[in-house]
Amino acid sequence: KIEQLIPKENKIDRSKLEDLLKRRFFYDQSFAIYGGVNGLYDYGPMGCAMKANFLNEWRKFFILEEQMLEIDCSMLTPSPVLVASGHVARFSDFMVKDAKTGECFRADHLIEAHLEKMLQDKKLSSDKRGEIESYLRQVDNMSAKDMEEIISKYNMKSPVTNNDLTEPVAFNLMFATSIGPTGAIKGFLRPETAQGMFVNFKRLLEFNQGKLPFAAAQIGNSFRNEISPRSGLLRVREFTMSEIEHFVDPSDKSHPKFTSVQNVEIVLYSAENQVSGQPAQTVKIGDAVRNGLVNNETLGYFIARIFLFLTRCGIRKDKLRFRQHMSNEMAHYACDCWDAECHTTYGWVECVGCADRSCYDLTQHAQHSGVKLAAEKQLPQPRIIDVVEVVGDKSAIGKLFKQNAKLITGHLEKLNKDQVEELESRIQSAAEEEIELNIDGLKFNVKASLLKVKKYQKTVHVEEIVPSVIEPSFGIGRIMYAIWEHNFVVRDAQRTYLALPPVIAPYKCSVLPLSANDEFKPYIKKLSSLLTNAGISHKVDDSSGSIGRRYARTDEIAIPFAITIDFDSLKEPNTFTLRERDSMQQIRIDLDQVIQVVGDLADLRTTWSEVVSKYPLFENQTTTEKDE
Amino acid sequence: KIEQLIPKENKIDRSKLEDLLKRRFFYDQSFAIYGGVNGLYDYGPMGCAMKANFLNEWRKFFILEEQMLEIDCSMLTPSPVLVASGHVARFSDFMVKDAKTGECFRADHLIEAHLEKMLQDKKLSSDKRGEIESYLRQVDNMSAKDMEEIISKYNMKSPVTNNDLTEPVAFNLMFATSIGPTGAIKGFLRPETAQGMFVNFKRLLEFNQGKLPFAAAQIGNSFRNEISPRSGLLRVREFTMSEIEHFVDPSDKSHPKFTSVQNVEIVLYSAENQVSGQPAQTVKIGDAVRNGLVNNETLGYFIARIFLFLTRCGIRKDKLRFRQHMSNEMAHYACDCWDAECHTTYGWVECVGCADRSCYDLTQHAQHSGVKLAAEKQLPQPRIIDVVEVVGDKSAIGKLFKQNAKLITGHLEKLNKDQVEELESRIQSAAEEEIELNIDGLKFNVKASLLKVKKYQKTVHVEEIVPSVIEPSFGIGRIMYAIWEHNFVVRDAQRTYLALPPVIAPYKCSVLPLSANDEFKPYIKKLSSLLTNAGISHKVDDSSGSIGRRYARTDEIAIPFAITIDFDSLKEPNTFTLRERDSMQQIRIDLDQVIQVVGDLADLRTTWSEVVSKYPLFENQTTTEKDE
Repeated sequence: KIEQLIPKENKIDRSKLEDLLKRRFFYDQSFAIYGGVNGLYDYGPMGCAMKANFLNEWRKFFILEEQMLEIDCSMLTPSPVLVASGHVARFSDFMVKDAKTGECFRADHLIEAHLEKMLQDKKLSSDKRGEIESYLRQVDNMSAKDMEEIISKYNMKSPVTNNDLTEPVAFNLMFATSIGPTGAIKGFLRPETAQGMFVNFKRLLEFNQGKLPFAAAQIGNSFRNEISPRSGLLRVREFTMSEIEHFVDPSDKSHPKFTSVQNVEIVLYSAENQVSGQPAQTVKIGDAVRNGLVNNETLGYFIARIFLFLTRCGIRKDKLRFRQHMSNEMAHYACDCWDAECHTTYGWVECVGCADRSCYDLTQHAQHSGVKLAAEKQLPQPRIIDVVEVVGDKSAIGKLFKQNAKLITGHLEKLNKDQVEELESRIQSAAEEEIELNIDGLKFNVKASLLKVKKYQKTVHVEEIVPSVIEPSFGIGRIMYAIWEHNFVVRDAQRTYLALPPVIAPYKCSVLPLSANDEFKPYIKKLSSLLTNAGISHKVDDSSGSIGRRYARTDEIAIPFAITIDFDSLKEPNTFTLRERDSMQQIRIDLDQVIQVVGDLADLRTTWSEVVSKYPLFENQTTTEKDE
Repeated sequence: KIEQLIPKENKIDRSKLEDLLKRRFFYDQSFAIYGGVNGLYDYGPMGCAMKANFLNEWRKFFILEEQMLEIDCSMLTPSPVLVASGHVARFSDFMVKDAKTGECFRADHLIEAHLEKMLQDKKLSSDKRGEIESYLRQVDNMSAKDMEEIISKYNMKSPVTNNDLTEPVAFNLMFATSIGPTGAIKGFLRPETAQGMFVNFKRLLEFNQGKLPFAAAQIGNSFRNEISPRSGLLRVREFTMSEIEHFVDPSDKSHPKFTSVQNVEIVLYSAENQVSGQPAQTVKIGDAVRNGLVNNETLGYFIARIFLFLTRCGIRKDKLRFRQHMSNEMAHYACDCWDAECHTTYGWVECVGCADRSCYDLTQHAQHSGVKLAAEKQLPQPRIIDVVEVVGDKSAIGKLFKQNAKLITGHLEKLNKDQVEELESRIQSAAEEEIELNIDGLKFNVKASLLKVKKYQKTVHVEEIVPSVIEPSFGIGRIMYAIWEHNFVVRDAQRTYLALPPVIAPYKCSVLPLSANDEFKPYIKKLSSLLTNAGISHKVDDSSGSIGRRYARTDEIAIPFAITIDFDSLKEPNTFTLRERDSMQQIRIDLDQVIQVVGDLADLRTTWSEVVSKYPLFENQTTTEKDE
């Protein structure tokens, strides 16, 4: 297994990382002065700046590059939308309660933990071990009844009090509220951003001048009322996602830019690998699509782009794999689904999902809303089709049914082929003099003679298709947490810092006077103002403390470059030292150039090794740095 | 009044603007295929891109420039936080219902509309008119009883059905939900982002190494369950805000950068102007602070910065004023408050609030959470203070009260001066042998002899201060709407477009082939890829339709620059035309330079008139443009 391949030196001490992240306020528990609420976290200045940089990069890499249509939809969502999507009926986890205290547990997590604990018993017979392992593999797909049986079979109790547990019940994970003053509009906080894109499909298609394929994208918060959130940022009740819905002709899922990524090598952990106990394999995405492992080019293109994006932002290649959903975990309508998983101290964590959801979502919303959600596709050549329709005698129906006449004729126009056929047979059946029509809960008796069945042929130039949707879905908090773990470094066995890539580092640069000497102050102001004008985020640290201690402080918050003002800076030509975080190397550079160089480094237009080759290395301050 | 000063040519046809905004999907009603929900809107690709550009600019202008500490807090908020802030008790509007249908109305809006309608009666006596006008001025500050009286006095009915109305009741505007599976944690969706910054004050102060002043900032969504939302984007149930909380020593509200803005001239509509019926006045902000009209430099600095930011983003100076809150509308704790109001077809609309809230918020949260929210301030010289405290006999109390001993000694340590004095007098009173202590709802009887009153002197070097907070608060949707109105142009009496400044335009540039000729295609691809690499958002419009018609289409969505590929582009050296939206002027420019020039224009590093002075004007295509 891949886990075993990860070199030991990459194992990190999570408590040290969390200490750094909370101490320097990357994130922390929300509302802590009121005791906090499980599963709610606030990003502090460092986490927030990193998140803003990450999302900016995401916008450039996906939206700008592919000219996606970004939208920004309401989080408050009326119930019918989520009934159509299936969330009201099925977006739930099973829950058991402590029979005495009422404490709630997620049933699958409780069962897993119990079974894993049993496996630690070295005296366990191999039969028993096999049985338990088999249950463990099935936990994700168990019904309430399955769970109840296994809880009872192994006599599982509350892990906190050892009290009995109640029967598992499905608990819907959406936060409910009511919209408007009367309480009549039931609503939920959206559990994902995707639905906003589906319900806007018609407008988006029109914006794209009716053409397929196109992609919509949305960045925003979603909400899930987790039963008992734990694992820090990995399982939370409110989180930022970014999702893409790429709408494509189901009969042609090729991608024009696929060749540009076909040689990208990715660790794929296929369903077959998982079933047969084989390890994941490194495969070129072009080969994976060619041999059918990945369903189609568009899905493959996104898998490769996700890989390139994550590694660009600091996810380590050796701790990233794409795991295919097995048939029993994939939704029945989906063609194929791959999760980008990052390895962390919590194990492999799903950070990005990438699914071909076929035409499920648009079909559901079309059915529930009664609005057609389809695109028109030019036929290669015009086609002659047979049309059968039932047409009402408008004038007679108008006289008989007055204000309801339009409802009836409108109803007849909207009938599909099967409904027309059924109605035709009723009209033709001699027994029925009057036809009863059920429309929006109202009943109308219409004389059969007023309804004519028309059959004719029509030449059509376009056909209607319901697009398939390929959906990459990013969990921002999880990815950020994985980036932190993958870039956590312990220097000299004690100083910890984050080696984040400049592109997502919270600040690009720090400005440090060597000491509190007043002569340095005008230069701090000057540098800070030049950096601001150049749009380079930076932090001035003019606090007391040795320069070495302050370097350690700026390293901690992942600032990749530091400009230091020392006594040589006061002389003409004013020069400064520029220090790189990971190598701790310094160069000497003058005022005219330092802003440009830092900007180029921050935006990846140059690298530190290129910079070092152009400017003299500066060695003196390193001694100062050590004596802290 | 200022309204009357706005020139007629600026009056816009709102229905035409809304048509453009919805047709080109800047925004539209959320969930429209399900009938929609009042007060919920989605931003489409154009609105979303403009919003992202606007927020980016906001981040640069405020956060980066002032090195503010941006944070990103949970929207789900447990009830105690909003009890402390006063929202649970007071964040409400009065509501009346149609006695038969149950339809809800906001009482103040209903009363206003009714009174305004009465004023239209030309036969109204001047006494009656005076009475009604006087009521109109008071509507914002009426109690439920006042409202009931006026509704009954003028026999007001439901404006929809003419049915009787119920008595006004306060309706809390927060969306309620419950957090966690047991339903035990009552929560709300935050009604503003400010509270997240107050509850994080301690961490932020620590992040700033204990120093004042500093500012926190937050951009995010907030929620208000409006009784009957109308006025499009101006009154909605879910909206994006950006708020700044600038924490400052209450005894020194000077601002180091105030001199940089002191000459900015702003239209100020003071409380006195309003009371005395005087018009607003144009004043230099430096003078306004000097003569005490604006309470302090920091408040004045932010007013000027808000003014500079709004006008930079397209708000017209002649449609922007800062209105001071009158004493009866300002919260009792606030020192001073000014609203930036933009004039629109709905009248003057509050778009940004800027208040000095004194130490109210931190004091409230400190009291409710029991956590000290204060900063330490170095005293100019050490001060000797008298200390009085009650100290318990730890060993005796430990033996007597066991696990509760710590609760008791902790309680004694936390007593404030008044409480110590009160306890001292109880201890000294001979009558009480035992002292009853009430701690967290528990009662303990402690022998008076175990409690010692200690009095001594202590030298202190710092004093604790609760900072004042100055709060600029931006309503993003309202500002965007005002920008749209202020930049809506009707060209040639029929074509409408948005003349947005390049800095916030959704796309910076369009790429247009003159026709569908295949030879143009490689140049489209080349230009698009160069623009993407330069980070310049753009839209390719290779649809059919004359070039003139496509210019009109890109004007509509506010794209400031258009690169057109024509037959001359195919010859070496490849040149293109570059067109500016507002002047419709075109220049001829070659491939090497066009990307750079567009980038400079988009980021305001150059202006169109500078560009025109360097490159030859190109006249030919204008004829093509006219023939559409």
